[in-house]
Amino acid sequence: MANMNIDQQKTFATAFRRLHRGPEILVLANCWDVASARVLEAAGAPAVATSSAGIAFSLGYPDGQRISREEMLAVVARIAKTVKVPVTADVESGYGSRPEDAAHTAQTVIEAGAIGMNLEDSQDESDTELADLSLAVEEIQAVREAGGKAGVPLVINARTDVYLNAVGAAESRYDHALRRALAFHDAGADCIFLPGIKEPGLIARFVNDLKFPINILAGPGSPSISELQRLGVARVSLGSKPMLAGLGTLRRVAQELQQSGTYMSLEGAVTYAEMQKLLE
Amino acid sequence: MANMNIDQQKTFATAFRRLHRGPEILVLANCWDVASARVLEAAGAPAVATSSAGIAFSLGYPDGQRISREEMLAVVARIAKTVKVPVTADVESGYGSRPEDAAHTAQTVIEAGAIGMNLEDSQDESDTELADLSLAVEEIQAVREAGGKAGVPLVINARTDVYLNAVGAAESRYDHALRRALAFHDAGADCIFLPGIKEPGLIARFVNDLKFPINILAGPGSPSISELQRLGVARVSLGSKPMLAGLGTLRRVAQELQQSGTYMSLEGAVTYAEMQKLLE
Repeated sequence: MANMNIDQQKTFATAFRRLHRGPEILVLANCWDVASARVLEAAGAPAVATSSAGIAFSLGYPDGQRISREEMLAVVARIAKTVKVPVTADVESGYGSRPEDAAHTAQTVIEAGAIGMNLEDSQDESDTELADLSLAVEEIQAVREAGGKAGVPLVINARTDVYLNAVGAAESRYDHALRRALAFHDAGADCIFLPGIKEPGLIARFVNDLKFPINILAGPGSPSISELQRLGVARVSLGSKPMLAGLGTLRRVAQELQQSGTYMSLEGAVTYAEMQKLLE
Repeated sequence: MANMNIDQQKTFATAFRRLHRGPEILVLANCWDVASARVLEAAGAPAVATSSAGIAFSLGYPDGQRISREEMLAVVARIAKTVKVPVTADVESGYGSRPEDAAHTAQTVIEAGAIGMNLEDSQDESDTELADLSLAVEEIQAVREAGGKAGVPLVINARTDVYLNAVGAAESRYDHALRRALAFHDAGADCIFLPGIKEPGLIARFVNDLKFPINILAGPGSPSISELQRLGVARVSLGSKPMLAGLGTLRRVAQELQQSGTYMSLEGAVTYAEMQKLLE
């Protein structure tokens, strides 16, 4: 797994951090294996972000920290070894509930060759409790310290699941998420990831109140990229949706074989020769 | 990796072998990871077949035995551990050129929990030499023996690449492929895989001359499934095409984000909730 090149990673971390400050919005269509990372890189992605759910699904685990830290980061290391752009890893809630666990995870992220990480404050989508705020803050501080110690200024994308998991009464969520976002930023987070938010007015309110980069999870029903950019969003990602869209294609291939016995759903594929070339 | 259940595998091998004898043609849309295997199983696949190119691409290798036996079979083991249908593994040319290598591979296939394997007679698609016929025959015999020794009557899908790799003069290929197919069957192969053949007349000629199950690699431009069944084909597979079609979807997602900033290419995805359920 040792895949480090500290000088290169330092340069990449700085470059990736800068991508959160415009002028263009940073758009990351998440990957889940080396092939998907290479396809995104070849399509012009300035960096690649992993989907933790995508990697877990690919290896046979449900999403929600059922995969081990080592298995998750082994895939990240394969990706970082192959692509030539910065890699940021989704590491769920850091594989453990103590700040030491988050620090260990950050160190493993760096060993895998990545330069950024997502860290969330819930265990899974059914978790309506969220991590204690002071503990979540200590985890982010521990990640920041681990990055400093290793010489890689990790780009920390701190996620709060207040909206995604519908935590507490609906009218309390804005203040709750804002409080967490501010505390995470004070603790050293570079960007605050707010999945579960699609409404333009709400996005604009967060942008105006936070005044630092925010990450929106987009997909069908979300404002367009240009609208998100106009609202002041710094970073857009798609989570496991690109992987699940590929599996949707697979399901259509299987259904078409059964129903009409034809192969039209295979049209538009990356060719074998293209893929060979992308991996040589 | 130890994932064996010899009694279950014996039953599965027998059931999978029977699927090559009708009444319906056996259609296998190949998988490349656990998620894709589960999607195919849920869509009604009676068995799942891995694509060696798909697995290699996913892990960051070009196709053509650049991946190690252990990495390839580790993915097969994850799949076999999760699905409840028989699993057959594409193991390229067996990871080594000696019959002992093929036997070792067969043993590893069984340890991974699979019950069948594809074994090809070329190193990669640029290989116009093909393995020496007597050596290829010894490899199949070694696989058959290894299965017998382990108590799992492996379903051997022996592949000749005479057509795929355009070996020798065009007018010599039919006799060359036929000679190999007959020798492979005599050595213990259950089915002969003839990739690179799409023309109905040619398929019918092989079916009539061989009188045992043949596997055709299908895709856009191939006869439909019902036409292949009418021609007497026993088994149809798609190789790495389903995986590459999913990557085609990913590429369209990335292009759409850049061009119109919208998310239509994500429509038709397997949902997150469906995938969670498939892996619980």
